[in-house]
Amino acid sequence: ELPLSAARARLLSFRSHTCGELTAHHVGERVSLCGWVQYLSKNSKVVLFEFNLFFFSLCFKSASHLKSVLFDLTVESVIKVTGTVRQRPAGQENKRMPTGEVEILAESVEVFNVCRTLPFEIKDFVKKSESLRMQYRYLDLRSSQMQKNLRLRSQLVMKMREYLCNVHGFVDVETPTLFKRTPGGAKEFVVPSREPGRFYSLPQSPQQFKQLLMVAGIDRYFQMARCYRDEGSRPDRQPEFTQVDIEMSFVDQAGIMSLVEGLLQYSWPAEKGPIKVPFQTMTYEEAMRDYGVDKPDTRFSMKLMDLSEVFLSTEINFLRSALSQPEGSVQAIRVPSGAVRANPFPVPPGHTKHMLQARMYLYVNSSSVSPSYCTSRSQRPLLGNVRLLCAELLESRGVSVRDPSAFRFLWVVDFPLFLSKEEEPEQLESAHHPFTAALPEDTQLLYTEPHKVRGQHYDLVLNGCEIGGGSIRIHNASEQLYVLKNILKEDPSLLSHLLEALDSGAPPHGGIALGFDRLVSIIVGAPSIRDVIAFPKSFRGQDLMSCAPDFVSEEELKSYHISVKWPTEDEQTASGRCSSL
Amino acid sequence: ELPLSAARARLLSFRSHTCGELTAHHVGERVSLCGWVQYLSKNSKVVLFEFNLFFFSLCFKSASHLKSVLFDLTVESVIKVTGTVRQRPAGQENKRMPTGEVEILAESVEVFNVCRTLPFEIKDFVKKSESLRMQYRYLDLRSSQMQKNLRLRSQLVMKMREYLCNVHGFVDVETPTLFKRTPGGAKEFVVPSREPGRFYSLPQSPQQFKQLLMVAGIDRYFQMARCYRDEGSRPDRQPEFTQVDIEMSFVDQAGIMSLVEGLLQYSWPAEKGPIKVPFQTMTYEEAMRDYGVDKPDTRFSMKLMDLSEVFLSTEINFLRSALSQPEGSVQAIRVPSGAVRANPFPVPPGHTKHMLQARMYLYVNSSSVSPSYCTSRSQRPLLGNVRLLCAELLESRGVSVRDPSAFRFLWVVDFPLFLSKEEEPEQLESAHHPFTAALPEDTQLLYTEPHKVRGQHYDLVLNGCEIGGGSIRIHNASEQLYVLKNILKEDPSLLSHLLEALDSGAPPHGGIALGFDRLVSIIVGAPSIRDVIAFPKSFRGQDLMSCAPDFVSEEELKSYHISVKWPTEDEQTASGRCSSL
Repeated sequence: ELPLSAARARLLSFRSHTCGELTAHHVGERVSLCGWVQYLSKNSKVVLFEFNLFFFSLCFKSASHLKSVLFDLTVESVIKVTGTVRQRPAGQENKRMPTGEVEILAESVEVFNVCRTLPFEIKDFVKKSESLRMQYRYLDLRSSQMQKNLRLRSQLVMKMREYLCNVHGFVDVETPTLFKRTPGGAKEFVVPSREPGRFYSLPQSPQQFKQLLMVAGIDRYFQMARCYRDEGSRPDRQPEFTQVDIEMSFVDQAGIMSLVEGLLQYSWPAEKGPIKVPFQTMTYEEAMRDYGVDKPDTRFSMKLMDLSEVFLSTEINFLRSALSQPEGSVQAIRVPSGAVRANPFPVPPGHTKHMLQARMYLYVNSSSVSPSYCTSRSQRPLLGNVRLLCAELLESRGVSVRDPSAFRFLWVVDFPLFLSKEEEPEQLESAHHPFTAALPEDTQLLYTEPHKVRGQHYDLVLNGCEIGGGSIRIHNASEQLYVLKNILKEDPSLLSHLLEALDSGAPPHGGIALGFDRLVSIIVGAPSIRDVIAFPKSFRGQDLMSCAPDFVSEEELKSYHISVKWPTEDEQTASGRCSSL
Repeated sequence: ELPLSAARARLLSFRSHTCGELTAHHVGERVSLCGWVQYLSKNSKVVLFEFNLFFFSLCFKSASHLKSVLFDLTVESVIKVTGTVRQRPAGQENKRMPTGEVEILAESVEVFNVCRTLPFEIKDFVKKSESLRMQYRYLDLRSSQMQKNLRLRSQLVMKMREYLCNVHGFVDVETPTLFKRTPGGAKEFVVPSREPGRFYSLPQSPQQFKQLLMVAGIDRYFQMARCYRDEGSRPDRQPEFTQVDIEMSFVDQAGIMSLVEGLLQYSWPAEKGPIKVPFQTMTYEEAMRDYGVDKPDTRFSMKLMDLSEVFLSTEINFLRSALSQPEGSVQAIRVPSGAVRANPFPVPPGHTKHMLQARMYLYVNSSSVSPSYCTSRSQRPLLGNVRLLCAELLESRGVSVRDPSAFRFLWVVDFPLFLSKEEEPEQLESAHHPFTAALPEDTQLLYTEPHKVRGQHYDLVLNGCEIGGGSIRIHNASEQLYVLKNILKEDPSLLSHLLEALDSGAPPHGGIALGFDRLVSIIVGAPSIRDVIAFPKSFRGQDLMSCAPDFVSEEELKSYHISVKWPTEDEQTASGRCSSL
């Protein structure tokens, strides 16, 4: 490991040291520090602050001379101080800071910039409204929390690269973001070209390119890939996001899973404690059965329990009638301390309707068990939600359910390869994407009972959030053609380049994509991915600082052969800072 | 440094070793190799090829059994071979390959994929037409040259990251590519949003964001930044490209230059020989005077020489008349071996017109000096071109002028800050961009004679190509406002967020951007940046493999409130593979 070389860094900068470097060892040395003024006291004592989050106290030899320099300064002004390091007066040490034993006896001050009066103090910024933080993002980022988040993100990605490139010989390949529209890619931004009627598309992932790179013999590809998804205003989604994109040749599911475990273990921030590998693995069936969801939060138990056998000869009417139905069952969640701490157990707000639809009943009066009645498997997600709501409810009443410092990774495997389309149940669609290979033991079912086929797909779940997904791909052209044409009823000509490539010596291959923004947000404990992205968009897709997107003149659009179709007045909506332009 | 651990890599893959790993040390070991069949002889001898460019010979224990397996195989089919390593028979060793002493006595073969008959053999691909290579890019990339290029690129970027993150504490920050249109950003792609009439823009560089990050206290930022430029069909430009984007606080020009020198020295591929730092530095004035260009190729001399004094009392009419004009001068290029090797020295094809316009004359009959007559400084670029053409001409006749293995870096500094607009000479425009600070000694001229101001801009030149440019930025809001409003006559409200940021405690800062694709292409000696980009666009901006850009239905455009304005029939143009859709 190469250390941050203070000597080399010094040569490149006006400063001789960073604020965080100075300790009692430097007493007597003449130094120059640069930073932002945090506090100015009447006796010209100044506290200096810098990117590495260390504060530093300054005193002045000749207060009268320097007072004139400091007179106009405001908090957050930028200065350079030259002076001598000295021990702080006895009793004034600050033991909480590594630099707290020393201070600078300043000889000269150079003022680089005087700060205007800010709309808020930096330290209060994180408490302010989201839109204010976004409008003044350059100030928001100066807060210690955002500095920590962005620096941890940078270090994490560096460690990941070291692991992939240096340990495992992966090749970092950049793939285009101006590409062709994916069949059915309804969430893809379009980019008009200078050829009339033709548009590029900003891809949701480099899926096709990574597979083509395997055909190209790259063997091990990775990329911190910028991806784009136009989802309108879904909360906590961003129109552009970053994924750790990985693909390997001559590999099976176990190989990819082992690689990812090694990757996370190697790059995991030391201060968050080590993580254990291998991660727990669970089939999709087990996840749905035990947790009612395909991304279980395994930091706590409270699994769904099947009590059907207990009630086989029950006299309770609605339970008996449920059990007489096809796939009918009685499910329960055991809520430890539920009866004591959350009695009467309320129906969580906003969920009454769903629960009635599911014909589900909660009993917590006399025991800590909440039996619930499901008519079919499809109701399980509702029970999964109830489980999570129970945890939240208990936590809100002071019961410790989930360890906030725990990181529980989980692989979910053996997903169904196809699902029935909601609007057209006879027709199948890919559960993930059309390139996923079937489990070897299910491959023959493709041609007979495709709805029963399980795919070689794997999801990585962390604390109940899906942070990654991948699969072993189909590497056989005729199998891929069959899936596209006969099962999914899609036009295979749109993917003819991929089919041709598979027919040109494609190796067996597979890969994964990790949602990097989400992963970082969980690691730093941020409530939103916006807290780990330097310049995120608002939930309406706007950059509130610059007011993007913005109007473009019809003249400028001419070279792209498009024109704006203005909506009628009633259709128009406008709100927020950037809508009044 | 972490080595590529064969043991760990093995666990993740079907292979026990890569083809390039096996040497005489492995004789007797049982191994599994995966790869592409390169050659199949009648006695079932197979040559296997793999990503790391090593070939491997296979022999078969039981030829009769394996013959049936191999019967259907074509070249470029993908197989796995399991067998035992053995010494090659005496006389059959291949000393040119590390693996040439051994072969595999194969026991079993698994066929993963049979390759169709390819349009060309892989090894011939690089000789084929550009459009064919692009259409079958996944095959083109299988060639050893493209494999080397992409792998070197990946290693180079990894070393750069190590230097910036691990040695100098830079923070890797991702900035948005969906942003606001830059004032005058005529080359920016637009991306329609769901808000009527509003468009994002794909930025040409993260210039504003990197400056905002300095205001945000990030101190040292870098990013391998994807940038976008819509230049229609300029040769050897790509609509998306990658730059090494760097910005630092509390730094001066010398600091940035020293950082970049260290960066290139640290990351330079060992096989290309070491590079010396510091790089040569030259002012813009010197470059124009001596080389007639602001990006001189310093691998050879042949500088422009001012012979005005020699001809002060000349009787030659046209020279006398030239010298009598304001800024008139007589310039010459001394072409070593020019008279001998290129006699008569021809006017290079296609340049006759330019040279007549410049009223330039070449004499090479009696000496090796080519005097040329310039009416003013503005003719110097023509002389600079002649210098390069002379070099090309000599090289085409077998004279060694430029060492093809030499890498000559050069800093060009002290550029003019503003230039007169061509169409409106009274009006100034930024020579680079409006954020560049003046040289400290020229700052006062901003308010009096702005056309005389030199900027703190620096270009990095390698072998006559500009591979980077940067500057110390204006960090004072009122100076920035003055430049935008009073000198450039631009509407400052479009940059109000940046002006506000500068007023909020902006540190002094500066940076640079290196054109990464161009840098890699020079290092590997590729004729085009398309040879170092995995999936480049054609010169018309098309992806010839997938036929992007493509048509999008009017229905799909509805949510973006745009419609296509189809040109009339005469305006339409169509050609090439992807235009017939």
